[in-house]
Amino acid sequence: MTSSLSTDVLARIADTLESRRPDRGGDPQTSYTAKLLAKGPDAFLKKIGEEATELVMAAKDGLPDRIVNETADLWFHCLVTLTHYNLRPEDVLAELARREGLSGLEEKARRPAS
Amino acid sequence: MTSSLSTDVLARIADTLESRRPDRGGDPQTSYTAKLLAKGPDAFLKKIGEEATELVMAAKDGLPDRIVNETADLWFHCLVTLTHYNLRPEDVLAELARREGLSGLEEKARRPAS
Amino acid sequence: MTSSLSTDVLARIADTLESRRPDRGGDPQTSYTAKLLAKGPDAFLKKIGEEATELVMAAKDGLPDRIVNETADLWFHCLVTLTHYNLRPEDVLAELARREGLSGLEEKARRPAS
Amino acid sequence: MTSSLSTDVLARIADTLESRRPDRGGDPQTSYTAKLLAKGPDAFLKKIGEEATELVMAAKDGLPDRIVNETADLWFHCLVTLTHYNLRPEDVLAELARREGLSGLEEKARRPAS
Repeated sequence: MTSSLSTDVLARIADTLESRRPDRGGDPQTSYTAKLLAKGPDAFLKKIGEEATELVMAAKDGLPDRIVNETADLWFHCLVTLTHYNLRPEDVLAELARREGLSGLEEKARRPAS
Repeated sequence: MTSSLSTDVLARIADTLESRRPDRGGDPQTSYTAKLLAKGPDAFLKKIGEEATELVMAAKDGLPDRIVNETADLWFHCLVTLTHYNLRPEDVLAELARREGLSGLEEKARRPAS
Repeated sequence: MTSSLSTDVLARIADTLESRRPDRGGDPQTSYTAKLLAKGPDAFLKKIGEEATELVMAAKDGLPDRIVNETADLWFHCLVTLTHYNLRPEDVLAELARREGLSGLEEKARRPAS
Repeated sequence: MTSSLSTDVLARIADTLESRRPDRGGDPQTSYTAKLLAKGPDAFLKKIGEEATELVMAAKDGLPDRIVNETADLWFHCLVTLTHYNLRPEDVLAELARREGLSGLEEKARRPAS
């Protein structure tokens, strides 16, 4: 895997999600994300509880494909949540990096925390 | 943010978590992750339910720092879960990329799915 | 509220739920509960995660009516779960009673635990 | 089971929980519930997410005793939540009864509880 994939994926999804915000012209009629964001926090936060539970069940079943799929579902709705609150996945990655003691060049490269 | 940070963070954390597996010599006495992995799925899956709830509460309070922190907690325990089941964050990112229709070079670059 | 209501409610709902089991002739076409039970555990367990999250959000909003409603939703899906596993709300009440140190006549009166 | 058990259990636990409220003199040093109530909503709401997840895992494992225990844990923390918001289990039971279409006349006409 090249180092560009994960950054591209998370950053590109975040960019796309931002374009679905009601104040950016997102259309609830044509976009699932725009619909979630237009409904407000309870709509997507409910999904976090739901997807977390589905991940737990997939893990109990020990099914690799479903574990990956449910984790993707969960992370996706986390990204929607971050979008609503004007946060970025990079903020979460920077926090994870900070905890891991990954410092120096990587830390300097991060965008300013919101 | 340079493209190396997020990949480095998720891949490096996953690498670290793998080294904490009981079958890789992880020591439950000195490492929180090794302790979780040694206890087995219920120990870290319970944390997913707990951290998902804490993210929901932080979001309801609208506190950016706590939202970032709780999302980091949640993703971290997802990474522990992936580690236990011999999965990688790259698998989740590839699934997210697939859904977003990000294809071509990035898809070709990804490591084979587990 | 008379003392007969709560027992009647929980026991009668449990009785009704039992009649919705696939092996008791419950019809998924006409009954929400029969549909849940026919789908199997993941269907109603997912609802427990979902309703628990909705209760947390209602509580964060401090809205009494919604707190009562979401608690009722959550308990209802717990009753569905108990039904699937051949358990009764009386078993849960007996466990709660045991913890509270309510002993003697009430304990003797309970039906045998499954 | 006599009709008095469940009412006694839920109502008596609720009575006890009320006495543990900080404004009723509950002592966080000696009582788990008083400590939860003194900490405020996030403390016991987090437990609802945690216990819901534990119930889901117990159900996936199909272990009757753990299902009963985790349901008791979940309901207990629901009762703590109700207490904080000046609500009663009887409110939840009444809502469940309302949904089931149990009205006054039906209650009076009911046959003896099972």
